Amino acid sequence: MNYSNLFIPTLREVPADAVIASHRLMFRAGLIRKLANGLFAYLPLGLRSFRKVEQIVRDEMNAIGALEIKPTVVVPGELWKESGRWDSMGAAMLRAKNRLNNDLVISPTAEEAFTSIVRDELSSYRQLPLTLYQINTKFRDEIRPRYGVMRGREFVMKDAYSWHTDDKSLDDTYQAMGRAYRRIFKRCGLSVIPVKADSGAMGGSGSEEFMVESEIGDNTLILCKSCGYAANVEKASCAADFTQIKSIEDAKAAAVNTPPLEKIDTPNVKTIDELCGFLKTDSKSFIKTLIYRAINVELDLSSAAGLAVSGGEKLDHKKTSSQAPAAYAEAFFAVTIRGDLDVNEIKLASILQCSEVELASDADVTRLTGAPVGFAGPVGLKKIPIIADLTVTGMFDAVTGALEKDLHYKHAAYGRDFTAWMIDDVRTVKAGDRCSLCNGELYTKMGNELGHIFKLGGKYTRSMNVTYLDENGKSQIPIMGCYGIGIDRTMASVIEEHHDDAGIIWPVSIAPFHITIIPIKYDGAVKEAAGKLADELTKAGVEVLLDDRNERPGVKFNDADLTGIPWRVVIGDKGLSLSPPQVEVKKRGEKESAMLDLDKAATEISSKIKEELEILNK
Amino acid sequence: MNYSNLFIPTLREVPADAVIASHRLMFRAGLIRKLANGLFAYLPLGLRSFRKVEQIVRDEMNAIGALEIKPTVVVPGELWKESGRWDSMGAAMLRAKNRLNNDLVISPTAEEAFTSIVRDELSSYRQLPLTLYQINTKFRDEIRPRYGVMRGREFVMKDAYSWHTDDKSLDDTYQAMGRAYRRIFKRCGLSVIPVKADSGAMGGSGSEEFMVESEIGDNTLILCKSCGYAANVEKASCAADFTQIKSIEDAKAAAVNTPPLEKIDTPNVKTIDELCGFLKTDSKSFIKTLIYRAINVELDLSSAAGLAVSGGEKLDHKKTSSQAPAAYAEAFFAVTIRGDLDVNEIKLASILQCSEVELASDADVTRLTGAPVGFAGPVGLKKIPIIADLTVTGMFDAVTGALEKDLHYKHAAYGRDFTAWMIDDVRTVKAGDRCSLCNGELYTKMGNELGHIFKLGGKYTRSMNVTYLDENGKSQIPIMGCYGIGIDRTMASVIEEHHDDAGIIWPVSIAPFHITIIPIKYDGAVKEAAGKLADELTKAGVEVLLDDRNERPGVKFNDADLTGIPWRVVIGDKGLSLSPPQVEVKKRGEKESAMLDLDKAATEISSKIKEELEILNK
Repeated sequence: MNYSNLFIPTLREVPADAVIASHRLMFRAGLIRKLANGLFAYLPLGLRSFRKVEQIVRDEMNAIGALEIKPTVVVPGELWKESGRWDSMGAAMLRAKNRLNNDLVISPTAEEAFTSIVRDELSSYRQLPLTLYQINTKFRDEIRPRYGVMRGREFVMKDAYSWHTDDKSLDDTYQAMGRAYRRIFKRCGLSVIPVKADSGAMGGSGSEEFMVESEIGDNTLILCKSCGYAANVEKASCAADFTQIKSIEDAKAAAVNTPPLEKIDTPNVKTIDELCGFLKTDSKSFIKTLIYRAINVELDLSSAAGLAVSGGEKLDHKKTSSQAPAAYAEAFFAVTIRGDLDVNEIKLASILQCSEVELASDADVTRLTGAPVGFAGPVGLKKIPIIADLTVTGMFDAVTGALEKDLHYKHAAYGRDFTAWMIDDVRTVKAGDRCSLCNGELYTKMGNELGHIFKLGGKYTRSMNVTYLDENGKSQIPIMGCYGIGIDRTMASVIEEHHDDAGIIWPVSIAPFHITIIPIKYDGAVKEAAGKLADELTKAGVEVLLDDRNERPGVKFNDADLTGIPWRVVIGDKGLSLSPPQVEVKKRGEKESAMLDLDKAATEISSKIKEELEILNK
Repeated sequence: MNYSNLFIPTLREVPADAVIASHRLMFRAGLIRKLANGLFAYLPLGLRSFRKVEQIVRDEMNAIGALEIKPTVVVPGELWKESGRWDSMGAAMLRAKNRLNNDLVISPTAEEAFTSIVRDELSSYRQLPLTLYQINTKFRDEIRPRYGVMRGREFVMKDAYSWHTDDKSLDDTYQAMGRAYRRIFKRCGLSVIPVKADSGAMGGSGSEEFMVESEIGDNTLILCKSCGYAANVEKASCAADFTQIKSIEDAKAAAVNTPPLEKIDTPNVKTIDELCGFLKTDSKSFIKTLIYRAINVELDLSSAAGLAVSGGEKLDHKKTSSQAPAAYAEAFFAVTIRGDLDVNEIKLASILQCSEVELASDADVTRLTGAPVGFAGPVGLKKIPIIADLTVTGMFDAVTGALEKDLHYKHAAYGRDFTAWMIDDVRTVKAGDRCSLCNGELYTKMGNELGHIFKLGGKYTRSMNVTYLDENGKSQIPIMGCYGIGIDRTMASVIEEHHDDAGIIWPVSIAPFHITIIPIKYDGAVKEAAGKLADELTKAGVEVLLDDRNERPGVKFNDADLTGIPWRVVIGDKGLSLSPPQVEVKKRGEKESAMLDLDKAATEISSKIKEELEILNK
């Protein structure tokens, strides 16, 4: 294709709001333009790469037997009311009303639409497993759309959904998806970090996120220096760095030499740091107690108040959700944790099966603990259930708040002086903690999520009444998985990983063109040779951009670098006057160029490009 | 591909709301399912055909140098306010508000989005002409969505837009588009009727609609039995079937033998039919006068009242629009036409350059004519401008209302007894009228619009301030064209044209699969032969659906007919036991089948399919 027949408005200037490389370069290379905040149009060069990413995703979905369908982008609000997400999706879901005043949703995701289609067609176990997907427009009204297409409001997502009779079948598809995702990112030339993740508002359990490292990533990843462990901090756990005990009896035994509980004056000492200074000890000796307010709790709390006031129960009494969970609009909890650690609110919300947790107001703290903020502690706390982080169960000589202004306890021992309604891991893992798998040192990275695979279980099939008849003719509810990849974000992430100061360096698999031919002056013998080489390469299956513009060579070189075409051939009078005639070939991102015989150039270049493609697609 | 790996929920029942063949068959063949009124999901088989239609459209757009881009589906309302269509698009345009209370539009079309992109990049005449297109989701909140995807609310449209320095350049692209459209429909196996059409709310002049005949079409087409004339009734004209005169003087001369105007009693006679009976004459002798209310009139009316009261002006005084048109919120007109004809309100609105015309209320008629409804006439009418259809200028001895209850005039003559402010063609052409090109007989068909090409002129570039510098460095406003094709409707129309009682008969170019292999029993030697043939055909580039289901042959045959796969091969023990082994090959829609040698079948079938494809794509 000739450059002058395309529409590639390259720019020297960087748009003021473009703070990351992909945004800057997609704009400068003429791949995208902004229609409004978070709304971007792909121009011809950008769309070529975009479609290639789409096609790689499509290939890999088809390869594992997923079937492409195309529901609408605008879907009836009724479906979202059925699933219960009409209320829970919040302001990120764009809604509209049609002329009949019916509610419509501009799809942010499509569990409901897919489930409703399958519901109407599913009758027998013989139809399962079934995996359907679409590659289609989504809209999420982000609070702060930014970073170009990396966090736009409208985007294209590949979203797949699968239905199964049992866990084994779901796991097979889930694993196949995981493998397909790894292939997709490899084919795009992307280094991804697959991590275990909290599945957030999607519900269900068993999920894996595919992250790319990014300075502007909105996820903190916890990684092990020794083994392959990788997790989102929202879910990460670490090796125990405290005395592990098995029962209340063990806890009491551990405290046998601990002096009795002693109330001490701590005038005007409120923070743990102040307390450390005052008592000349370190924060690991403190039991920090935070009062949390939890919203829309689905965990059964019927036994919680009693436990919280009675104390002295058996240790391993972690609650599991009942099948028909209670729902509490709000509930308060005291969360205790070793003084040097932070409470992970995502873990806490997940344990409580609630939509959100937040620190209680000062007034609530005073009401529930009987003391001003800063003096909460588990000893003698009767009005609310205590949730103890695992670390606390190993503390048998600790300092903690005494539920009175300016007073703390010394020598507090778990099991002897207090107990908890629930014990679980609620700590925030941080750099320097040890890996739970291999005890290696953990470190952190910021990451952006490109893809996500989930086991949803029965969340949607139950609420939307999907059933099938099993081998015995008995009605059953199928279980589901869902699997997403952001196409725009994947494309932008490739640029984040593959660029230099001069521009993009596309992997050949998703480059808008494989090669650009630059005639020094598009005239006479040079024009003829360029045209001939372009034809030969095109016939060999190579996608050629012939820069036929009447521009200085420097302008053409700069645009070639900026737009990131993987290969470049320069044809000039000087090379053509040699015997045999020569052209200069250079790979984008490499410093060295090579001279090739003009009449062998097409063969040599096309075989190199095919080789590169094969390596990426292997 | 194996049938059992697909998701093809075929049905014997016809959905209650499916009244046309394509809706019925797309539903029964498992191509689509309904999500809500006017919202349809394409299932795997349907999507395969849908993508092929898309790809044919894309091929032909690329072939004429149009460049594909991808703006967003959701666009800022601001763009629509700039163009002025925020107000004029009405309730069919779906709107939403984001969390910041900004207006958003779910694109019903994309003149604004494309124009805004080009506006920012256009600087020089050297960048023109430029043609950009997208194949993307649109939404129009139809009052009565029905007929399946033929008139859905969400649909996919190919919409192209072009920008030009001059009329010649616009016409070149317009003509190229017309040729591309003809190729697109031919490749899809569709018979289309290209017709001149009113361009409606799109604005501008110079347009062609591509129609398919359809019993449920929402357009009446006027066609000539002798020549190729085809027009939308909204714009159709016909040969004169009346005395044509050139001037008021000619009109007066024609009336020289007409008796003087005579007022007659016509008690309780209101309709033309009643009057015909009463006067024992036919409706062609009457001048029908209708009082219209026109809304948002842009035509300059400053001279209208004066003309209407003064009379006796020169005949050929048709108004043309001024560059900065006046705008009247409402204006009333008396439209006169020969008694056997109907006024074409679209033509009338076009002449008046107004958004809408409607018959005036009874109260307005009485106020403006001084008489009850039924007695309006041009003679002595002073309060409103008269618009005369061309037919009226040839009437020199007519009956017409006398502007008084129960009174009519006889012997009314145009030019002598009354004149008009404006004379134009406002008649509705109907079957039996004569062709204006060849005088052949005209007939009508109902049609559905699949595609539309327009010359928009400066409508959007002017309102949205698009400029470029010409050869002399002077700022100019480019002119535009726009060109749409509905993908869903095209696909449904193919089914309308190609089906029988048993199901769809796909043209091979857009069939979901080229061939289906039906093993009588999928087992043993039959299974082996079927698999081998499928492999051979696939290697030859043929798309094969192997019906591996454990179903009776009748079920498989019915599904093959219903889903419309163009070729069918049946493999059974009986044929395989022959020497050499035989398979039965049949083309969908033909009665006769043929026996082929199994080992030659792949070669013979694939060459026939390629031949068919070549004919369609030629």
